[in-house]
Amino acid sequence: MSRDARPKAVVLLSGGLDSATALAIAAGRGYACHALSLEYGQRHHAELAAARRVAASLGAAEHKVITLDLTAIGGSALTDRRIAVPDQPGDGIPVTYVPARNTIFLSLALAWAEVLGAWDLFIGVNAVDYSGYPDCRPEYIQAFQRLSQLATRAGVEGGSFQVHAPLIEMSKAEIIQTGSRLGVDYALTVSCYSADAAGRACGHCDSCRLRAAGFAEAGIQDPTPYRD
Amino acid sequence: MSRDARPKAVVLLSGGLDSATALAIAAGRGYACHALSLEYGQRHHAELAAARRVAASLGAAEHKVITLDLTAIGGSALTDRRIAVPDQPGDGIPVTYVPARNTIFLSLALAWAEVLGAWDLFIGVNAVDYSGYPDCRPEYIQAFQRLSQLATRAGVEGGSFQVHAPLIEMSKAEIIQTGSRLGVDYALTVSCYSADAAGRACGHCDSCRLRAAGFAEAGIQDPTPYRD
Repeated sequence: MSRDARPKAVVLLSGGLDSATALAIAAGRGYACHALSLEYGQRHHAELAAARRVAASLGAAEHKVITLDLTAIGGSALTDRRIAVPDQPGDGIPVTYVPARNTIFLSLALAWAEVLGAWDLFIGVNAVDYSGYPDCRPEYIQAFQRLSQLATRAGVEGGSFQVHAPLIEMSKAEIIQTGSRLGVDYALTVSCYSADAAGRACGHCDSCRLRAAGFAEAGIQDPTPYRD
Repeated sequence: MSRDARPKAVVLLSGGLDSATALAIAAGRGYACHALSLEYGQRHHAELAAARRVAASLGAAEHKVITLDLTAIGGSALTDRRIAVPDQPGDGIPVTYVPARNTIFLSLALAWAEVLGAWDLFIGVNAVDYSGYPDCRPEYIQAFQRLSQLATRAGVEGGSFQVHAPLIEMSKAEIIQTGSRLGVDYALTVSCYSADAAGRACGHCDSCRLRAAGFAEAGIQDPTPYRD
């Protein structure tokens, strides 16, 4: 087998709609994509199963799942079962915010990139629909990129890491339109905070509503499998 | 029991000499110390056992161990058994460098600090003896502190994180003298890269040599349990 001549990228892949689109964008830009998923104590495993399907369907060069038990830290509705996921968004930063999550995930992606000899990291954060999350803002992404140079042997030896957040200024509808053009099968992705084991969505949580509204606005039929 | 009125700090604790000293310094400055150790696939568990003993002996308010399998990423003599730990330091960054390790560890410390309501993180990095590690330099620590403000709800809401690296400019002898004054029992700590299950040191690896030279220079008797 001949060596893959494409530059490598590490792509954070949750199994949701956004990160699937980020993976399709990275692949479309010609990177050999090394997808990284974290099993961090999410409420369900449907998301990780979705990540596996998405990585395969978009031709990822590799898909790695790392286990990191963030329930030991807690502090979020996603990592502490005593905190309920609300149906309605409230004011301020949502209870689904996981403390320092993107910093933890990007630092693992950075570690893997350094081992692979990759200079490009992709993360599907979005500052529009989820503007409440501090670690989804452009200034955060830029700060992490600067840190990457100082944090690593590769950076010190003169390489230059790029942290790509291609969805950061897109609306949900624009994300869906972009991914659809790039061949993302959104039926494979799971966004619902309380999907069942088969990955079927509840249809009424905050995340389901945003997703459904995105398909409606994009003028693309919603392929999400719903429970009822 | 009355509530602990002291400000909280999260202290990264490996079980080695440096992080034990950092914990003693944090406690000496009046913090209620929440010690955090990572089980990341180190070659031996003696280090974690040492961390438990050190946390107890220095009166940590709490000691948490989080499992994160960095052998899935590899790239270091400490996380990939196919890479040997050398007895002699070579040129440049050592093979014991673990890609992005301090960024991963500090991001977990940051997450826990946010959940605890702590504003202070302590890390026992040192730029003198281990100047080859990029993530042990002052400019790296400052960059992580800036990132902390942008990365978290707490930072966005106006709080200010401080990342303390009190050993960063100290020689090994100064670290040992400081810790000894603060009551650190260095017999409890493990520095050796190939300690046995009981925590006894080999006496000849790079880390053992640095440690022994530090005690000699400090004029303090070396309490390290050696295998032979």
